[in-house]
Amino acid sequence: MNIREATTEDFDQIWPIFHEIASAGETYAYPRDITKEQARKFWMEKPEKTYVIEDDGDIMGTYYIKTNQQGPGDHVCNCGYMVASEARGRGLATAMCEHSQERALELGYKAMQFNFVASSNEGAIRLWHKLGFTTVGRLPKAFHHPAKGYIDALVMYKWLDI
Amino acid sequence: MNIREATTEDFDQIWPIFHEIASAGETYAYPRDITKEQARKFWMEKPEKTYVIEDDGDIMGTYYIKTNQQGPGDHVCNCGYMVASEARGRGLATAMCEHSQERALELGYKAMQFNFVASSNEGAIRLWHKLGFTTVGRLPKAFHHPAKGYIDALVMYKWLDI
Repeated sequence: MNIREATTEDFDQIWPIFHEIASAGETYAYPRDITKEQARKFWMEKPEKTYVIEDDGDIMGTYYIKTNQQGPGDHVCNCGYMVASEARGRGLATAMCEHSQERALELGYKAMQFNFVASSNEGAIRLWHKLGFTTVGRLPKAFHHPAKGYIDALVMYKWLDI
Repeated sequence: MNIREATTEDFDQIWPIFHEIASAGETYAYPRDITKEQARKFWMEKPEKTYVIEDDGDIMGTYYIKTNQQGPGDHVCNCGYMVASEARGRGLATAMCEHSQERALELGYKAMQFNFVASSNEGAIRLWHKLGFTTVGRLPKAFHHPAKGYIDALVMYKWLDI
């Protein structure tokens, strides 16, 4: 496995991963009918940095890092991670999250925040806890899940700068 | 007092209020050195709607309303309110917050979320509680206050659609 910064050309391989996850509507706050061009803006342009994780030369996952709030909040970053369905359970999310925490410190951030974790996404929540994140907030019925209806979303947070 | 939708021309009167609050760096997550043009984008362009509150024909406060998260989160809105320093303590924030909750329901939102309330901003926190908001999250040291250093920020939330 190799993690490297994404290039513009990588988005053709990122898009199928993004599209599968966004169109399912179960984990990410993107419109389920998001277009490739909109997705490119959100994932590649708006963030400060975007990375891909390769396995045998194929892109199997991706993450972004960006400033979560400006001004008095600009020492806290936000990240989002996506793993191709065929590559799950192999530690790619863990590898990307650990990589992102190192990069965050290098970029000058002191903390990392996940703003909107669907409370049904138990695998992710378990993983973030294992990697040192704390659930610091619970937004009642803030996530409209396609099967479960209005469910809570969690805010998770980790201070990185020990 | 009269609350009405803001026009492009109103920003010349909004800017001194915005600038005083943003440059103090004590309450809002905007860069303290934000320019008028950047502020115009954040306050007038990006939100779904922007309103002003007039007192004797002068703009004494303003608020915006926008979607807080897309897709599975797009039933929750976010608002920000600013009151001119010379007009504080006269109920303008209360009037705007009540107005915004009505407008939110009319626009189809079901809940309202404040993402980043400085824990030092006790007057605002007391007011939001009085108006039915609950503190649903606490972000440790997420707000870098110019005098107090790293302080907690609160996430506040109200379900509107009874």
